[in-house]
Amino acid sequence: MSLTESVAWVGVDWGTSNLRAWGIGGSGAVVARADSDQGMGKLARAQFPQALGAALGQMQLQAGPLDVVICGMAGARQGWIEAPYLEAPTDLRLLGQGAVSPDMPDERFRVSILPGVCQRQGGENVMRGEETQLLGLASLNPDYAGLVCMPGTHSKWARLDGTRIEHFSTAMTGEMFALLKSQSVLRHSLNGPLDGPGQDEGFVAGARDGLDNPAGLLGQLFTVRAASLLSGQAPDWCAGYLSGLLIGTEIAASRNEISTDPVPLIGSDKLCALYMRVLHMAGASGRLVDSTEVVLAGLTAARASIA
Amino acid sequence: MSLTESVAWVGVDWGTSNLRAWGIGGSGAVVARADSDQGMGKLARAQFPQALGAALGQMQLQAGPLDVVICGMAGARQGWIEAPYLEAPTDLRLLGQGAVSPDMPDERFRVSILPGVCQRQGGENVMRGEETQLLGLASLNPDYAGLVCMPGTHSKWARLDGTRIEHFSTAMTGEMFALLKSQSVLRHSLNGPLDGPGQDEGFVAGARDGLDNPAGLLGQLFTVRAASLLSGQAPDWCAGYLSGLLIGTEIAASRNEISTDPVPLIGSDKLCALYMRVLHMAGASGRLVDSTEVVLAGLTAARASIA
Repeated sequence: MSLTESVAWVGVDWGTSNLRAWGIGGSGAVVARADSDQGMGKLARAQFPQALGAALGQMQLQAGPLDVVICGMAGARQGWIEAPYLEAPTDLRLLGQGAVSPDMPDERFRVSILPGVCQRQGGENVMRGEETQLLGLASLNPDYAGLVCMPGTHSKWARLDGTRIEHFSTAMTGEMFALLKSQSVLRHSLNGPLDGPGQDEGFVAGARDGLDNPAGLLGQLFTVRAASLLSGQAPDWCAGYLSGLLIGTEIAASRNEISTDPVPLIGSDKLCALYMRVLHMAGASGRLVDSTEVVLAGLTAARASIA
Repeated sequence: MSLTESVAWVGVDWGTSNLRAWGIGGSGAVVARADSDQGMGKLARAQFPQALGAALGQMQLQAGPLDVVICGMAGARQGWIEAPYLEAPTDLRLLGQGAVSPDMPDERFRVSILPGVCQRQGGENVMRGEETQLLGLASLNPDYAGLVCMPGTHSKWARLDGTRIEHFSTAMTGEMFALLKSQSVLRHSLNGPLDGPGQDEGFVAGARDGLDNPAGLLGQLFTVRAASLLSGQAPDWCAGYLSGLLIGTEIAASRNEISTDPVPLIGSDKLCALYMRVLHMAGASGRLVDSTEVVLAGLTAARASIA
């Protein structure tokens, strides 16, 4: 990162809960960074320009008009302006052509919002944001064909063939973990320090149960409560078990589609490490992909084809 | 019910959220009834006697000491007094022998709290209250051997052989429905009237998906969101789909254990009707059992063997 290079264009990942912006210099390097908690979920339509302006105001910008390329929930119907979905199967190199331009009062900025991808056949589904990471992954690994796993609140599993997205699904694993941990009867068993030494043992036990019997999830969840009542399992074990059970169940559902190639994992390092471990338990393997690197590569690739 | 017959003993089902008490006359008929919202979850230990006294105070009681037989969460560790679990497999006729007697300041009442049942082998599990219904079912149907389904917040599936409970499991289906409906991202798709004409169509579609692919639950849940975004499915359809998907997934997990006999269903009429329908879709059948009738039969049978 050069301290003197100024920003030639800006890439933005604007999700439901926050906004991440990168200023890219003429050399292609990231020369500025701005983060904000002004996610789509917190903003009324009219507040988007100001939220973006505030993030850009933290960067040292070039004179003259500047491209701002946005992916994510800012393009949802409830966002700034709707960027209609591409429909899978499709070539992700079409993302740039599908971009829409919202009104931006500050005329220095030429703002484009990339579309998400929907799927109508083979299981209705939607994504907004992940498609740009997938385009980036494909740009960096042009020959990859196979599943990609993107762990998170709503984990995405996509089948890529180069820049083509063939099919995808969404597992509500992360949201389920958060709800069950804090809102369900299981919270009584997770009420205490969760980072203790039992967490790992619980995680492995849960992952094994999820992998072995994914159809039994509704019943196996209650194991958490029973294990604390009957075996005195502590909150750390219970939290590990719940996490392992959910991830194991998720991975089992895609197991038949996983080949011998390592599955690229895009997400937080901590979460991806857990998925990697369960993939290994399932006789498969994963490899960590830098999520910032792929979103930047995707924004860069999409920008090249914006009309 | 005689208006003149007085209460010879009292049976109580004391759950987490409410208390139901029946006054039984010398003839064995129910001659009084008291309901209260003073469930175990709302009471500190010292408040149980007063809550019970308030319920009994609504009944016209016989002079002299009176048996009060309680099943349910009042016997949990966090309840009035812990009634240690029987361990499955076991004969439910032992429930009375396992009863414990809490202190009751009003000496007219001889209070007994029945144990729950736990399972340590073949999947740790616990129940408190359902075991008494199961004993009642077995008392009324002495020859029944097979699965019993008790739909609810935490559905129980028990394998009975006469009065013997062989094995049981707990599916968090009802709690999951409530959490997903009101706390998850799916709430955006269920935000409106849920009782419309699309509910039935959604229910059948969801039940079919759950029965066909129970291992895919975490992914199929998101179908609710996608269907409202892409196909414009209304909240009634989405609520029906979510309900059908969860019940279908639950029933699929036990499908291999269901014989050609109708599965006794113990629970609310509305919920049992949904389960009956999905059992039929799965090529099986169910039959409604009156839940009050079986809990009373269970309390009666257990009372006979209280020491």
